[in-house]
Amino acid sequence: RINGQRLWDSLMEMAKIGATEKGGVCRLALTDVDKEGRDLFVKWCEDAGCTIRTDKMGNIFARRAGRNNDLPPILTGSHLDSQPTGGRFDGVYGVLAGLEVVRALNDAGYETEAPVEVAVWTNEEGSRFPPAMVSSGVFAKVFDLEYGLSRADVDGKTMGEEIKRIGYDGPDEPTIDGHPVGAYFEAHIEQGPILEDEEKTIGVVTDAQGQRWYEITLTGVEAHAGPTPMNLRKDALLGAARIVDAVNRIGMANQPYACATVGMMQVHPNSRNVIPGQVFLTVDFRHPDDEILAKMDGQLREAVEDIRDEIGLEMDFEQIWYYAPIKFEASCVQAVRDGVEIMGYSNRDMVSGAGHDACYLSKVTPTGMIFIPCVDGISHNEIEDATPEWVEAGGQVLLQAMIAKADE
Amino acid sequence: RINGQRLWDSLMEMAKIGATEKGGVCRLALTDVDKEGRDLFVKWCEDAGCTIRTDKMGNIFARRAGRNNDLPPILTGSHLDSQPTGGRFDGVYGVLAGLEVVRALNDAGYETEAPVEVAVWTNEEGSRFPPAMVSSGVFAKVFDLEYGLSRADVDGKTMGEEIKRIGYDGPDEPTIDGHPVGAYFEAHIEQGPILEDEEKTIGVVTDAQGQRWYEITLTGVEAHAGPTPMNLRKDALLGAARIVDAVNRIGMANQPYACATVGMMQVHPNSRNVIPGQVFLTVDFRHPDDEILAKMDGQLREAVEDIRDEIGLEMDFEQIWYYAPIKFEASCVQAVRDGVEIMGYSNRDMVSGAGHDACYLSKVTPTGMIFIPCVDGISHNEIEDATPEWVEAGGQVLLQAMIAKADE
Ligand SMILES: NC(=O)NCCC(=O)O
Ligand SMILES: NC(=O)NCCC(=O)O
Repeated sequence: RINGQRLWDSLMEMAKIGATEKGGVCRLALTDVDKEGRDLFVKWCEDAGCTIRTDKMGNIFARRAGRNNDLPPILTGSHLDSQPTGGRFDGVYGVLAGLEVVRALNDAGYETEAPVEVAVWTNEEGSRFPPAMVSSGVFAKVFDLEYGLSRADVDGKTMGEEIKRIGYDGPDEPTIDGHPVGAYFEAHIEQGPILEDEEKTIGVVTDAQGQRWYEITLTGVEAHAGPTPMNLRKDALLGAARIVDAVNRIGMANQPYACATVGMMQVHPNSRNVIPGQVFLTVDFRHPDDEILAKMDGQLREAVEDIRDEIGLEMDFEQIWYYAPIKFEASCVQAVRDGVEIMGYSNRDMVSGAGHDACYLSKVTPTGMIFIPCVDGISHNEIEDATPEWVEAGGQVLLQAMIAKADE
Repeated sequence: RINGQRLWDSLMEMAKIGATEKGGVCRLALTDVDKEGRDLFVKWCEDAGCTIRTDKMGNIFARRAGRNNDLPPILTGSHLDSQPTGGRFDGVYGVLAGLEVVRALNDAGYETEAPVEVAVWTNEEGSRFPPAMVSSGVFAKVFDLEYGLSRADVDGKTMGEEIKRIGYDGPDEPTIDGHPVGAYFEAHIEQGPILEDEEKTIGVVTDAQGQRWYEITLTGVEAHAGPTPMNLRKDALLGAARIVDAVNRIGMANQPYACATVGMMQVHPNSRNVIPGQVFLTVDFRHPDDEILAKMDGQLREAVEDIRDEIGLEMDFEQIWYYAPIKFEASCVQAVRDGVEIMGYSNRDMVSGAGHDACYLSKVTPTGMIFIPCVDGISHNEIEDATPEWVEAGGQVLLQAMIAKADE
């Protein structure tokens, strides 16, 4: 049994680091506050008797020894980084639920057969350094180390530099090759409205949607908003606006399930009386069916080319990230389902709408995920919230699933 | 006769201050480089024997005495501030053409009846501190001093603070009441394509379009781009995009002449996998006919309310600036026309598409404007350009018009 109160208290303690006025968290990857959060986690793990390792991507692993330490560990974890206006649960919940599993095993004096480990994956959000899940991606050999270290923020700072700067550039090779794993579980808030709507406490995650991320730069001609006749303009923002609308139409046309979002836009020179000469924008497409995701990709390419030609713009268009829909491994999904049943929680099977480190881990080790609800389905928002009951429930299920796998 | 080469050289010398890599200028109002430009202008004027006065809005006046110094001066001028990615002629041309008039009168040992003065108006562009033409507006009593000094940039710094910081907070009251003016002329690049298209050297400006500027803030709900179903979103950027498109449609629907531009947009939190929770955008409407400008205003209000309701957003909508179309004074327009004819330049009558300090001056003193072409009609762009011939021609016409009025 985990101690729900202790888990809650740890979450609230961690939420002080990078706390925002509106009750959320701004703990962007590899900033000073991210370091502070990591330091606290490491201290807690050491207090719980774990040994700590770090790798070249800044990933942290805290290990609790098992009876047979030749067995690969049963791993859990998630991320401590947040969105610029993020919440107190996204990511950090999975990390501290893992720590609570360790603490609960300690309390009970329970020795698992295989060791258990808690991981902190660097830069899961992809907000400061796109794309998302970079370091679990390197661990799972989807990205190579060089790609991971060279991801850059808007100021041109790279992950490699920033990992060094905050002192988390560890000695380990950051791939599963030098660090075998028996199975991986991740607890996370749902970040959507379904569980709360249906009054279920636990989501047994069977799949995750596929994703495609794009970067588009439109170039027109900067000119004066007054004396430049409408028919002579090449307005990059007009093009960008039509792309936003097209992205939305593509999302609506591929219901159910499709999600289509423009989250970021930068206008140049961004002056009221200047026709914008250049706009940078991003597109985020998701669908659980890879074929429909590919269809959306085709629709986007057609739409942006039409818009470009209509206004006479130049365009750089790049798909910067793609991953196909994920199926989680049957025995791990079953271990989660068994845990839910032992505890008697209401539940349903779910497809994850977000990407998670578990998505990449699933490519190299048996993987399962546990969702708990979040209030009003809101995440990536400072008002993100969850109840202590949900938080505890997810931890109990994680404990059951990990013991089951560690003692298998 | 003015010295065209000297005027050109002064323009190129001034263009070094705030020069950008692409051959333009970034000399935002009341920045250190604006101060540098002002200092150079003041030095040149002192070298030319002028006396300098500055007022509480940071406006600078350089006076060349006349035979009868009880007469109000014939004033010319423009502005030294630029857009963030501005050109080497917008504004600065009118200021240095005025200085060249003084130098030419000196060379000829010509004494005008009334004194002549060259003004530098603070923050004409309105890019750093909206709206445009703030300090000529205060001078013309369209705005009061308090309004002028309290205009703020995106970081919250006010014009009052920044005028002080760069040391241009003069002792004079910044209105025409304490500073009578006999007439005002302003030379400027057209900033549009008409003169060059029609191969005319001079535009005799008879009118200026009316303008309405707006600020709109849309508020939706920030949420995760993955697990948030399309039909539950309140996407502020989708609303903003539809407004950009509506603004364009309103512009196209009110041809000929209408201009409609969204020049600025700020997205919050501006993260790829977050549905934007808030967007700020600006609208710039122009038309030479006040009734059509009012119709465009009505169309905008209807469109933005529909868009707001369609997506379920909250909206702050404010018209932050309005001025009706301007008719320049007949005797000043005639003085410009006479000057053009004396010099034998090809010319046409024109309506100014941009706002100019002359627009506000016209409310309190007889005013005329002289346009010269600019290459490809491009302005508010680092590639803004003009030929030495055009630059000289505008200066010659300005000299003729000012002498005619000063000796009247
Ligand atoms: N869980 C989460 O917010 N992941 C970030 C990557 C994504 O946008 O799906
Ligand atoms: N001339 C000029 O660029 N003025 C700025 C005000 C406007 O946008 O019309």
